[in-house]
Amino acid sequence: MNKQTTTSANADKLNLGGRSSELVEQEGNRQDLGFGTKPEASASRLLNKNGSFNVRHINQGFWNRMNIYPRLITMSWLHFLVWIFAAYMVANTIFALIYVWVGTENMMGAENTQVSAFWSSFFFSAQTLTTVGYGHLAPRGFLMSSIAAFESMLGLLSFALATGLLYARFSRPTPHIRFSNVAVFAPYLDVNGWMFRIINERSNQLIDVEIEVSYSRMVTRPDGSRARQYSNLKLERNKVAFFPNNWTIVHAITPDSPMHDCTPEQMNDSDAEFLILMRAIDDTFSQMVHLRYSYRFDEVVWGAKFRPMFNGDTRNMVTVDLNKLDEYDLVPLN
Amino acid sequence: MNKQTTTSANADKLNLGGRSSELVEQEGNRQDLGFGTKPEASASRLLNKNGSFNVRHINQGFWNRMNIYPRLITMSWLHFLVWIFAAYMVANTIFALIYVWVGTENMMGAENTQVSAFWSSFFFSAQTLTTVGYGHLAPRGFLMSSIAAFESMLGLLSFALATGLLYARFSRPTPHIRFSNVAVFAPYLDVNGWMFRIINERSNQLIDVEIEVSYSRMVTRPDGSRARQYSNLKLERNKVAFFPNNWTIVHAITPDSPMHDCTPEQMNDSDAEFLILMRAIDDTFSQMVHLRYSYRFDEVVWGAKFRPMFNGDTRNMVTVDLNKLDEYDLVPLN
Amino acid sequence: MNKQTTTSANADKLNLGGRSSELVEQEGNRQDLGFGTKPEASASRLLNKNGSFNVRHINQGFWNRMNIYPRLITMSWLHFLVWIFAAYMVANTIFALIYVWVGTENMMGAENTQVSAFWSSFFFSAQTLTTVGYGHLAPRGFLMSSIAAFESMLGLLSFALATGLLYARFSRPTPHIRFSNVAVFAPYLDVNGWMFRIINERSNQLIDVEIEVSYSRMVTRPDGSRARQYSNLKLERNKVAFFPNNWTIVHAITPDSPMHDCTPEQMNDSDAEFLILMRAIDDTFSQMVHLRYSYRFDEVVWGAKFRPMFNGDTRNMVTVDLNKLDEYDLVPLN
Amino acid sequence: MNKQTTTSANADKLNLGGRSSELVEQEGNRQDLGFGTKPEASASRLLNKNGSFNVRHINQGFWNRMNIYPRLITMSWLHFLVWIFAAYMVANTIFALIYVWVGTENMMGAENTQVSAFWSSFFFSAQTLTTVGYGHLAPRGFLMSSIAAFESMLGLLSFALATGLLYARFSRPTPHIRFSNVAVFAPYLDVNGWMFRIINERSNQLIDVEIEVSYSRMVTRPDGSRARQYSNLKLERNKVAFFPNNWTIVHAITPDSPMHDCTPEQMNDSDAEFLILMRAIDDTFSQMVHLRYSYRFDEVVWGAKFRPMFNGDTRNMVTVDLNKLDEYDLVPLN
Repeated sequence: MNKQTTTSANADKLNLGGRSSELVEQEGNRQDLGFGTKPEASASRLLNKNGSFNVRHINQGFWNRMNIYPRLITMSWLHFLVWIFAAYMVANTIFALIYVWVGTENMMGAENTQVSAFWSSFFFSAQTLTTVGYGHLAPRGFLMSSIAAFESMLGLLSFALATGLLYARFSRPTPHIRFSNVAVFAPYLDVNGWMFRIINERSNQLIDVEIEVSYSRMVTRPDGSRARQYSNLKLERNKVAFFPNNWTIVHAITPDSPMHDCTPEQMNDSDAEFLILMRAIDDTFSQMVHLRYSYRFDEVVWGAKFRPMFNGDTRNMVTVDLNKLDEYDLVPLN
Repeated sequence: MNKQTTTSANADKLNLGGRSSELVEQEGNRQDLGFGTKPEASASRLLNKNGSFNVRHINQGFWNRMNIYPRLITMSWLHFLVWIFAAYMVANTIFALIYVWVGTENMMGAENTQVSAFWSSFFFSAQTLTTVGYGHLAPRGFLMSSIAAFESMLGLLSFALATGLLYARFSRPTPHIRFSNVAVFAPYLDVNGWMFRIINERSNQLIDVEIEVSYSRMVTRPDGSRARQYSNLKLERNKVAFFPNNWTIVHAITPDSPMHDCTPEQMNDSDAEFLILMRAIDDTFSQMVHLRYSYRFDEVVWGAKFRPMFNGDTRNMVTVDLNKLDEYDLVPLN
Repeated sequence: MNKQTTTSANADKLNLGGRSSELVEQEGNRQDLGFGTKPEASASRLLNKNGSFNVRHINQGFWNRMNIYPRLITMSWLHFLVWIFAAYMVANTIFALIYVWVGTENMMGAENTQVSAFWSSFFFSAQTLTTVGYGHLAPRGFLMSSIAAFESMLGLLSFALATGLLYARFSRPTPHIRFSNVAVFAPYLDVNGWMFRIINERSNQLIDVEIEVSYSRMVTRPDGSRARQYSNLKLERNKVAFFPNNWTIVHAITPDSPMHDCTPEQMNDSDAEFLILMRAIDDTFSQMVHLRYSYRFDEVVWGAKFRPMFNGDTRNMVTVDLNKLDEYDLVPLN
Repeated sequence: MNKQTTTSANADKLNLGGRSSELVEQEGNRQDLGFGTKPEASASRLLNKNGSFNVRHINQGFWNRMNIYPRLITMSWLHFLVWIFAAYMVANTIFALIYVWVGTENMMGAENTQVSAFWSSFFFSAQTLTTVGYGHLAPRGFLMSSIAAFESMLGLLSFALATGLLYARFSRPTPHIRFSNVAVFAPYLDVNGWMFRIINERSNQLIDVEIEVSYSRMVTRPDGSRARQYSNLKLERNKVAFFPNNWTIVHAITPDSPMHDCTPEQMNDSDAEFLILMRAIDDTFSQMVHLRYSYRFDEVVWGAKFRPMFNGDTRNMVTVDLNKLDEYDLVPLN
């Protein structure tokens, strides 16, 4: 390889004749998020509502596609428990068949179980796998005993995985942040602002909450080709130390905003999408948590103002009504 | 939705006619912590002594309100153990009833236990759930055996949760920082300072301890409305690498301090509160820990100086007396 | 010690006569990565493809050389399981021998197992170690009972290690990043660039991916001695928030680049190596992950352009073909 | 309290008459590490060789002084295992006594164990606690059965703690960094430097290693009182991305160094101590690790140069000899 490469036809000095390059600088300033600028993506949204990406990988290795652990952690509880139970049944069935094949005459007490050889074996397997080992069923002879010894070891190991996963799922810090179902363009101070609103549905605390918003849209290059462009939106406040109630994230549309002078029509044509990345720290174990969300052009209301979420009654406590998260009134823009 | 929104009556160009906005900048400089400026909160303290927030959520989903895991982690040890024991009793009772219903004639050895059918079933359930499985009681017949097989699996899973929680509680890094029960205004060098004092009650080490203090008070806006205002207080020292003994956190009241020229009366009227956020790293596992605390206007002493916490005897060791944390002497201010 | 050292012959004032030192500043600016400048390393690569370092330690303590835990975590699954199984067999054999020595007449039920005394003891040991404890074999007498009691405790402790390791291996966040097997010098905008390409083979997400590239080569000092020199390469983009598809990392060869005016021959002679350090956050548990990689001069193609990895078909999804990662076309450089 | 405090005699305006304060600024620039400036500490070292602090707390709460978890994690393996075993014996003894008190006539099979009632109970307890439950011993009657049921639950919970601790100890990332037993003043480029040397004894990797050194000494204040003063030492290199072999940390003694013009005598009189704080990331699980170390004036050699640790033989690998860590030659200073 060495030779072939280093003597390739056009291997000459990397000379620029001293020209510094503006293009390079421009490119360096491009605020890409890692999606690239391929127009293939144009037809669809980049970021799904659940935070997953709209990308398909092909020729992926089997295990990489399976991606077992994250899948087992993130699947629904119902699915997870069904999986565990199924695995338990399958394992017992397999061992039951083996025991039957070995012959239940090698299983002490099998004669008193009042069930068929298979089921005796099945229940013996279950008692071995869970290490409950009553002993009214017990292995006799070398083969039966070795298989049982092996199964009990296997039982400890496999249940360790099952229980480890169970606890990891249970203890995993999953921020339950609800985003307002639409973002709005609302009057903001003496200008207008693009806003959305979030609330922590959980009672546990999130601290040092950080938000990044990127405005993505298709633009037409001088050469007529279309490409996706990204700009980070300057926020009124991109970090808060505490997050006890709702938070309205605001991007003020000042002349230096990439959305300045933009119309709804332009936004639709440019296939605009607002990508949101949130970082926070879960208080219980001071663990970092991440969240992704996105609003597309058709999830933005022009000229609307969120209704306050605080309840009228002024007891000695601020009261936040989660149901009001999505409520807004249409208002004229500045 | 798309149509309705993007063609809403007042959807026009977001034009500012080039006016840049000072208001936006001001707003950007506001040092909010995430509490917002709602006066509803005025009557009460923002941050409770235990670090929780004085906010009530309504229309919260059931599971989100339950917030089981953090609750199980943070509840008192007594409560936790009672819960575990109760769950164990309940589970056994339920299964006992099932076994009784199935009929203890299907339970080998039930006749020798010298207790009622229910209790035989109860203890059999316990032996199955904990997988101790002596076997003097053992299932007979299909139904009994399957239920037992299921219970033993359930036992492994549920005890995994219990033990996982137990260990998580045990190993959780909880900083035992004690704050002086009052903050003081004391002479500091040639000016005055607002001070409070903390000590690590534990013997384990905290490193890279960081402190943030925010001074919150109600102000009257030009238009007469009242709103809560926040300012971060510049500290003599906001981070220390080591925290071996007590630490007096000092905010020097220089002319640029938000508390300059402030009187006790003003502080009361403005419903002042000092919000403290502490970050540190627990040495045992290099885990991040967080702590919140707050002092209200009525927990601040004007003209007082903390007594040193070091003991007189000067052996080859610095000796810190934790009982002296709250001691102070009244002194005239500069 | 004190005396000897502090009164050593040449202990005089640390005086510089006020001369400030440029050499010190230069040295301070040297961009070392921690490899040092020893030419010993010249003959070989600094960083192996698997991210390990090409360094050998001698006179290392036994346990430090063993370094058991990381080894057990990083070894292949096959090796790991073999180890577990072997340990299980060995432990049972040892205890079996002990039981035989104690005498199986002290083991109830040994007479019905239809196997030799050794195997009876072996299986009894297995049943004790795994705490399955059927009980058709049970200890009798003080000695046998105590050994069994000890073994069952040992079983719990050692299986806790085994299962802990098993789960740790299973849940460990290992980024499956594939690097293009060669780096290339390609035309880049109006200049040339040094590039390589990476792809996330896994389906799980990496976020906040950060890349650092250091260009290392041997240089001849004014005094004729050779030393290794390092320079960080300025990248078009050294961090992305999301990493949904492939990413081509580019270093533009502008006049201020350390590779400017460099030829393939020079690169070979200077024994050049590109050291890559990658940091990212695994999304499932927001855990930090690290990756190291390196390209040597003979793994760089001069004048080549990577082929796009996106598939032709434009369905509503971006489709990335992992097999295309290494594909490139030879092209003339600018 | 409120009243008493806010109306305290000397509670007047916090007025400075606009005087800004230089003292405050100076104080702000003091580079304290958290040890404070109390001279009590003067006689002894601040930081022990093992990284613990030379501070004694009195009137500490019992649990806080116990500080069980960190202690169990950091104690020696021998101590830990002895503790586990002892706890196991004690628990069994206690339950054995209870069972004897209940009466072993309620324990099936007690008559065949060929040991005294106490030992039968003891072994039964062990079989219950570990959930091995052979069943040749089994509870009979309500009381016996309930106690056994309770013990088996207790066994699961307590062994979960024991095994959790065992694994936590085993998997805890403890950096095995060895520091040269002395620091040296050596010629460095055209000036002199204060240096010490570290090596990673383990085979596993540490990355992003960061070092902070603080120079602490007693100074005499204008008013004649003595106080401890701290200055962070500017290092040639305070962070390396990789740490494959040894690393010599160098502070160049330029005119702006706090050690400039300092003599051995001064250093002794000023009771100087060099405090070192190290941060790194353990590669196996990307976990943060911390380390503390310190050199006192009598552990510094004036005019000495460390011998290179690289081995002569230049095979294709850099070879580092750990035994050479402490070797140095006396040399004249610049």
